[in-house]
Amino acid sequence: MKLKAKYIDMDTGEITALLHVDDCMEIGVHEQDRVRVKHENDTVTAIVQTTDTFLMKGEIGLLGRAFTYIGPEPGELLDVIPTGKPDSVDYVRKKMDGQELTEDEIHTIVGDIVSRSLSSVELAAYITALHINGMNLRETADLTNAMVETGEMIKFDRSPVFDFHSVGGVPGNKVTLIVVPIVAAAGLLIPKTSSRAISSAAGTADIVETFARVDFTAKDLKQIAERTGGIMAWGGGLNLAPADDVIIRVEYPLGVDPHAQLLASVMSKKKAVNADFLLVDIPMGAGTKVPTMEMAKGYARDFIELGERLEMKVDCAITYGGQPVGRAIGPALEAREALQVLEGSKNPNSVIEKACGLAGILLEMGGVPRGEEKAMEILNSGAALAKFREIVGAQGGNPDIKSADIVPGKLTYELVAKKSGYVKGIVNKQIVKTARAAGAPKDKGAGVFLHAKEGTKVDAGQSLLTIYSENDNKLQEAIGQARKLDPIIIEGMVLERIPGFRTIHV
Amino acid sequence: MKLKAKYIDMDTGEITALLHVDDCMEIGVHEQDRVRVKHENDTVTAIVQTTDTFLMKGEIGLLGRAFTYIGPEPGELLDVIPTGKPDSVDYVRKKMDGQELTEDEIHTIVGDIVSRSLSSVELAAYITALHINGMNLRETADLTNAMVETGEMIKFDRSPVFDFHSVGGVPGNKVTLIVVPIVAAAGLLIPKTSSRAISSAAGTADIVETFARVDFTAKDLKQIAERTGGIMAWGGGLNLAPADDVIIRVEYPLGVDPHAQLLASVMSKKKAVNADFLLVDIPMGAGTKVPTMEMAKGYARDFIELGERLEMKVDCAITYGGQPVGRAIGPALEAREALQVLEGSKNPNSVIEKACGLAGILLEMGGVPRGEEKAMEILNSGAALAKFREIVGAQGGNPDIKSADIVPGKLTYELVAKKSGYVKGIVNKQIVKTARAAGAPKDKGAGVFLHAKEGTKVDAGQSLLTIYSENDNKLQEAIGQARKLDPIIIEGMVLERIPGFRTIHV
Repeated sequence: MKLKAKYIDMDTGEITALLHVDDCMEIGVHEQDRVRVKHENDTVTAIVQTTDTFLMKGEIGLLGRAFTYIGPEPGELLDVIPTGKPDSVDYVRKKMDGQELTEDEIHTIVGDIVSRSLSSVELAAYITALHINGMNLRETADLTNAMVETGEMIKFDRSPVFDFHSVGGVPGNKVTLIVVPIVAAAGLLIPKTSSRAISSAAGTADIVETFARVDFTAKDLKQIAERTGGIMAWGGGLNLAPADDVIIRVEYPLGVDPHAQLLASVMSKKKAVNADFLLVDIPMGAGTKVPTMEMAKGYARDFIELGERLEMKVDCAITYGGQPVGRAIGPALEAREALQVLEGSKNPNSVIEKACGLAGILLEMGGVPRGEEKAMEILNSGAALAKFREIVGAQGGNPDIKSADIVPGKLTYELVAKKSGYVKGIVNKQIVKTARAAGAPKDKGAGVFLHAKEGTKVDAGQSLLTIYSENDNKLQEAIGQARKLDPIIIEGMVLERIPGFRTIHV
Repeated sequence: MKLKAKYIDMDTGEITALLHVDDCMEIGVHEQDRVRVKHENDTVTAIVQTTDTFLMKGEIGLLGRAFTYIGPEPGELLDVIPTGKPDSVDYVRKKMDGQELTEDEIHTIVGDIVSRSLSSVELAAYITALHINGMNLRETADLTNAMVETGEMIKFDRSPVFDFHSVGGVPGNKVTLIVVPIVAAAGLLIPKTSSRAISSAAGTADIVETFARVDFTAKDLKQIAERTGGIMAWGGGLNLAPADDVIIRVEYPLGVDPHAQLLASVMSKKKAVNADFLLVDIPMGAGTKVPTMEMAKGYARDFIELGERLEMKVDCAITYGGQPVGRAIGPALEAREALQVLEGSKNPNSVIEKACGLAGILLEMGGVPRGEEKAMEILNSGAALAKFREIVGAQGGNPDIKSADIVPGKLTYELVAKKSGYVKGIVNKQIVKTARAAGAPKDKGAGVFLHAKEGTKVDAGQSLLTIYSENDNKLQEAIGQARKLDPIIIEGMVLERIPGFRTIHV
């Protein structure tokens, strides 16, 4: 059937063709079927949406890239032919039916995800099936390789390449800003890419962006990392394993991250930069992605075995994630806290301990004995700070940067204890909600600074945390959240009295 | 945040708000999050899509019903506030995690499906989870009731109400056109609603529409059925258990029909017309929805037990679906064949046997002894034909209708046997594809007429089937399909020779 091209300047993430219901009847297609649309020598396969008002009979509306792929002039006649679903839909069905997928099938699915050939509905079915039926490690390794091969790869001239990844889920986890300069100062190559926050208060890329550029081409990234030994870049712009960027579109609304997909996401980004040694930080504790030690050990085993299948040497560190790391949550606040540690501050201890512990493991993977001691030495000697500044300079920031240069939001509010007692818990999720309400991660200065952490004794009226914001409306919103959510739980030391044996005086 | 309203005259089936990426950053929402949009006293909750070209910062595009719900003037300022997901998304997650849902949770999900509050992604996750994890019969009964309660119901003044449903999957299944008049002629009330074809060559509504109206209001349907005892209406326009109409939007592209959803779909449509007695036809055989006898019996058990929970008396008939029922496939061809049987034709036997068998069961459910004999009697006496014509007249068709009045497509093509042998199989799916390529169900005259059925001896060059079409392009397409697909399998009686013992002459 010949239909008149109409451009619709909207991109829903799918390759969509809008057809009039009468034309759909005529050629026998339904909503969510596919048509091949041809203009001269260019063809695009699009998913059908129907309308009886937006278009006239005889017209075809092509959304966003569906139009630009084949580039007709508006009004030109296009050939429109019904066509079948891609094979990958059958393989999604296979996974829905609980079957193991072959290497070829997995490659076909990933290829179709990256080329946007699967609809949101099909993609959601895939992720749901993966969530329920899972993948074994053979499938997961194939998934990882498929994700690597459908994106860019970066090959460094130096080797070996060291890398580090945190599974995430714990707020305030700014340790990358300390780990990378320590490892690079020891002479190892660590080209670290990070993500921005999706549902957290600050991703590492958001934090680094408060004082340096994070958006580089693969070529610039390679150059900077090879020159300074380290980089702290945003991975999102590099097109490394880009299937992830498409999949997140359904994982995020469903609030799921299937185990196999999580493993493959991490490993594919690392494989794409040809990492030889990888350390995975698995924060464990209530409110993280990994609530129990047993689960954390399962993750560790899977990462290590998957590493073997991918010829990457993987170590894992299970870390305490039951409360925020350090005291600062939010881009600028976290940058300042990390920089204070690099400048020699002995606080907060949790940040120093975690950063040096992780850096130490990386050093030992690189053949340096007594890694943690060595990491501490590099930090205390000022070598880590010097390397950090060198990297910041190479990333277009101020090479003389000081923590005092980083200024959090000017509007603040102190949340005080309603009663005296001990801090029994800090609820990660509530802290994140408060920081996000205050404007993080978009407003770099927004966030939360904790004055009391688990186990601290507090008196009624004492300050528990300060909320920082750049905007009064958001500050008020955050105050409301903090008051409602009670992010810091205070109890007496006697939590509950359970009557048992009694002495009775007669 | 205040944003300027813009109307986008497109309906994707979701309640969608299109926002500029900068505004999304500002208020902290991502694609697939939700916002509450307020205009004066009206509020709508919409799913966020983002753009950086289609709209300017400060504008909000409301698609289709998202706009009409709250009815602002284009350009008016609307209040836009981020809001959370509906609770039903948590319940979908619960089913994804393999848990049993409570009655309340199921009602919440169905309510949100009907009000279009779930996104396609969430709906796809629900259907996938249902496909994989299933529902027990308690959940299925709750699902059925929830589907009934979210739609219209029809209460007849006469009782009991008899009803009939075929699970479908077998082509040429025009028996409803014979069952309904036989049962009504026996004095029972059978207000039968049917669907149109989605992926088949003809739904019962498509067939009936070749000679009568099928689209009625609930009031007209009640009146006609109570007057004549029977009706053959299209159920789609009646808003009975409308959750189905939304769910099909993801079931169809995924090619799944989860067992619990299938059971609830059937039973809710019947419960909505307050059926007291229901006969379910379960066509069983290769290429149908129910390939094995074991599976068919499982379906039957579930329908019967579900009927008990819903206080409906259910009988099931497992019928042979391994090849088309009768010889005609396609709306007009099937109408003509059914009418020929009503007029006294002794052919095709499979149609007569199936129709009288099913009608007989219904009669027995209504207390008529020796139901099948009685059904045959009503058919042979001409009483069924008279009742059929009465119903057709009541549905706005010609009350003197004859089979000769129904004319199939004028363009025809005979597919002939390439070799001599026996018809070993007729592939349901290929027959349907051929009929659809010829234009069915949209072109009422299009379809396929089989000259040979399973077990028939044919000679090379003998006609196997005739393709009917109303349009030469489609005829050519159908011919191409039929030649490629080989819908009729011919073999010698010796299907394969397996060499074993040999006599060797020395």
